[in-house]
Amino acid sequence: VEGEKMITVLAGGVGAARFLQGLVEVVPAEDITVIVNTGDDAEFFGLHVSPDIDTIMYTLATTVDEKRGWGVRGDTFSCLKMLKRYGYETWFNIGDKDLATHIYRTQLLRKGLTLSETTERIRRKLGINVKILPITDDKYVTKVVTPSGSIHFQNYFVKRKFRGKVIDVKFEGADNAKPSPKVIESILDSDAVIISPSNPIVSIGTILSVTGVKEALKERRTKIVAVSPIVGGRPIKGPADKLMQGVGLEVSAYGVAAFYHDFLGTFIIDRVDETEKVRIEGLGINVIVTNTIMREMEDKIQLAKVVLRSVGIR
Amino acid sequence: VEGEKMITVLAGGVGAARFLQGLVEVVPAEDITVIVNTGDDAEFFGLHVSPDIDTIMYTLATTVDEKRGWGVRGDTFSCLKMLKRYGYETWFNIGDKDLATHIYRTQLLRKGLTLSETTERIRRKLGINVKILPITDDKYVTKVVTPSGSIHFQNYFVKRKFRGKVIDVKFEGADNAKPSPKVIESILDSDAVIISPSNPIVSIGTILSVTGVKEALKERRTKIVAVSPIVGGRPIKGPADKLMQGVGLEVSAYGVAAFYHDFLGTFIIDRVDETEKVRIEGLGINVIVTNTIMREMEDKIQLAKVVLRSVGIR
Repeated sequence: VEGEKMITVLAGGVGAARFLQGLVEVVPAEDITVIVNTGDDAEFFGLHVSPDIDTIMYTLATTVDEKRGWGVRGDTFSCLKMLKRYGYETWFNIGDKDLATHIYRTQLLRKGLTLSETTERIRRKLGINVKILPITDDKYVTKVVTPSGSIHFQNYFVKRKFRGKVIDVKFEGADNAKPSPKVIESILDSDAVIISPSNPIVSIGTILSVTGVKEALKERRTKIVAVSPIVGGRPIKGPADKLMQGVGLEVSAYGVAAFYHDFLGTFIIDRVDETEKVRIEGLGINVIVTNTIMREMEDKIQLAKVVLRSVGIR
Repeated sequence: VEGEKMITVLAGGVGAARFLQGLVEVVPAEDITVIVNTGDDAEFFGLHVSPDIDTIMYTLATTVDEKRGWGVRGDTFSCLKMLKRYGYETWFNIGDKDLATHIYRTQLLRKGLTLSETTERIRRKLGINVKILPITDDKYVTKVVTPSGSIHFQNYFVKRKFRGKVIDVKFEGADNAKPSPKVIESILDSDAVIISPSNPIVSIGTILSVTGVKEALKERRTKIVAVSPIVGGRPIKGPADKLMQGVGLEVSAYGVAAFYHDFLGTFIIDRVDETEKVRIEGLGINVIVTNTIMREMEDKIQLAKVVLRSVGIR
């Protein structure tokens, strides 16, 4: 009998959630630890919202609205309509069921629990067996620098629908943000560390900016595998292209590989990007070319298998 | 031209709200100040809920669910279902739109606003022209003493559906509760002080227990008129009978009059209670017999007119 293989996944929101849907079909959920970006966390209506944690949890609890990629399937939006009547800005769509998560989280945080402790309780209530670790319990905010000033990532992403030029991306609080308990241990002790096909700047970049994370990853190079979120020179979803440009990165699988080259062992790129293989290998990174587009569950499972095999699991 | 007549109404929830629906048809809403019971206020899910204030506001904003008497018409209950999944007790029914009120109120209170200031903002957002004053901005909780112990009024009223014996009713915090700004001034300066057909113990009794309120009322006897909430020896709605028994009062219009006799000028009782007229007059209270059951809007308007005429208005 093969021993348990512990797997750590670095994750943002939707891209990571889709990848995890395949992964939990291939390995036991109990063997997986997901380290999730919290740079997008924001307070709305006095409630603490953790968009990426929620997307991961709702997806794993199979209650996610698959079409939108966020929120709870079949949710209503009555509260939001009424909040608008009270004068609140309501560009951040929070459904009524989704709201319950933020109410519960906020109450636990107010009682003095950390974000990790809060997340642990929520995932258990939702019946999720994958362990979920917020990258940090400290305050940490991703700001997008635009020509008209620096704004919260959610403001840029949701309110402005990522329109307009990005000059830079800043991680406020990164210098003082410490990894939450078990984050470093999980990276150091796992049999594989998988970097999801998430936004390299505002999802993975935020995780890398937290004290000690990059150093821990550097010790695990041969066990680290990333899936490119850039396919054919464009992000699968979201504003990764604008953000990569904003921080001076080439918008390509190569650009992502270059950003990760300090610690990355293996990079999985899409067939359409095969021409980039040699350039990426030139960075000292092993490259695997496969289909990375996850339309159906079968695609997700195949991708998970390729990823695991690349680090010698199964 | 007749000058403005300022009218103050002491109020609980549903009974008062129905009476106010008629009153605002007879006098300008701007001339009415409602002093509302806050002894039933409670925290649910980390949110401050003011049941009586909300019932009054939703009724005046014509968004109340008329059938239930509380909550917002056509509301959904998605959040509550999800809160249940998180392990919360959900016997206190909060709809999704209703929740927005509690979220807004709680956020304002956390910012340091008083309950009066918060209420003032909410009623303006809801387009309500009647002034609404919580009886106090201080913490003040109505507890029902049962054979198995002392419990929050909402627990007795909603969770236990007012089943079981009541030994006593206690107003925790009453000794230190000060009237909110303008409460005393409103009682002293109005041309009429109307006591709604609300529960005499847990709605009006809580108001009377706040420092200085009873003393102010005593100075206005001839301008004070109450509508009996007891008709034919039974409350129109709710547990007034059990609570009156619990504090040793006769469950009758007379029992209510006796409870108010220190300051009451005129008592309006239902036709079915005409036989109590003489007994009540024996307490030194002027009695008017009329129909007090408010089924249709016409009933509410008629009752409002009788009440106003009894103190010389219109």
